[in-house]
Amino acid sequence: MTAFADLHRPGDPLLLPNAWDHASAAALFCAGFPAVGTTSLGVAGANGLPDGAGRTRAETIALTRLITSLPGMVTVDIESGFSSDPAEVADLAAQLHDAGAVGVNFEDEMGAPEVHCGLIEAIKRRVPGLFVNARTDTYWLGGSSLDETLVRAESYVDAGADGIFVPGMADPDEISAVVDRIDAPLNLLYLPGKHTVSDLAALGVSRISTGSLLFRAALHATVATALAVRDEQPVASGIPGYDETVKLLGP
Amino acid sequence: MTAFADLHRPGDPLLLPNAWDHASAAALFCAGFPAVGTTSLGVAGANGLPDGAGRTRAETIALTRLITSLPGMVTVDIESGFSSDPAEVADLAAQLHDAGAVGVNFEDEMGAPEVHCGLIEAIKRRVPGLFVNARTDTYWLGGSSLDETLVRAESYVDAGADGIFVPGMADPDEISAVVDRIDAPLNLLYLPGKHTVSDLAALGVSRISTGSLLFRAALHATVATALAVRDEQPVASGIPGYDETVKLLGP
Repeated sequence: MTAFADLHRPGDPLLLPNAWDHASAAALFCAGFPAVGTTSLGVAGANGLPDGAGRTRAETIALTRLITSLPGMVTVDIESGFSSDPAEVADLAAQLHDAGAVGVNFEDEMGAPEVHCGLIEAIKRRVPGLFVNARTDTYWLGGSSLDETLVRAESYVDAGADGIFVPGMADPDEISAVVDRIDAPLNLLYLPGKHTVSDLAALGVSRISTGSLLFRAALHATVATALAVRDEQPVASGIPGYDETVKLLGP
Repeated sequence: MTAFADLHRPGDPLLLPNAWDHASAAALFCAGFPAVGTTSLGVAGANGLPDGAGRTRAETIALTRLITSLPGMVTVDIESGFSSDPAEVADLAAQLHDAGAVGVNFEDEMGAPEVHCGLIEAIKRRVPGLFVNARTDTYWLGGSSLDETLVRAESYVDAGADGIFVPGMADPDEISAVVDRIDAPLNLLYLPGKHTVSDLAALGVSRISTGSLLFRAALHATVATALAVRDEQPVASGIPGYDETVKLLGP
């Protein structure tokens, strides 16, 4: 088991914050998080591209190369693989692994599950040591069917997935059902106000991602700070100074 | 006078927030700011490069190309020009102008003022319509000498600078002295807790930049939000949702 896989413990989940550029990743490692994911919305937004449209492949590779030099583990959001060709997706996974990534996360977008299985198999055949987190969009895009989630999750695990990600799932009974029935660590998306880390830990969740939350918080702070200056309101306390920031980001 | 130059009004200053990627620029334009600058710390930090070391030339050009497609005016922080060769700096200015930038801002780093004058002259000869904001580091890096500031500012204006930027200056009497003596709009850096927009307006300042403040606020919010999730504290209110963010960042 890799060091990254070992962080996925039912009941003692890995809290995985998601970065989108060098600065966000550096700051999160500096704050003590042992691993970061990437957020496709953040990567797309930072680069002026649409999210989930399969157009950020080059930017995703470049970001991975940049942040794997930082002192921490990196798992990469590759949307739905940027291709439906298993060989191309396996190539991408190999490139990311060579760059130092410990895992990838990719979504089925409610396409045919056998296509997703084919991509998972191709990646695991090419890069067995890469942690493949298979995301199903049954709750994010689909009709929130627990049955469909279990069927898809089971087939992804059979295809070799190391973990299952069901963003949008929040009901405790449904979470328990997935934990009980699926033989792989369950990853959920943290939903502010809907649950806490300890709620999810108690249900047996193994990994909790923040998705695009931190990127959206950063964007909000950007505008809120500019408006505070304009409106002569106090700016948020705790903002690091120039020198402190240079030190935080620097080599 | 260009539309951008026209926003520099003594007593009714342009509040210029500084962006570092597509998302921050898009969000600031969306919030109603007519123009954004860039922040070299942000551009360097986002790309894993040191600030002020002359290493972000390519990233600065790429960012300019990206954000000039947004609905607003863009002025670009080019550190100290990324070269001491006037022809090279003029080439860069022309590239940025061709990409749609309305201005550049660049610093003397307390080098010989005649070198800075040579760069200003070269830019204005090549791209007369580009607003050249000449920054002197007398307060940022130097001994905070008002006399030295006046001498440098006067020579930069004589060389063709459209505006003068003195980051770090905060004393009202000193600000008034520069406004009175220098025949060009004065740009100051907003220093939280030291002055307000209306204080600076009353002193005759024409432009107020936020420098790296918004970038640092974004970085702070990133980490603070991740820690709030970990520590089961409420996350900041007002963070936009996924769909709202997608809409904000545009097509």
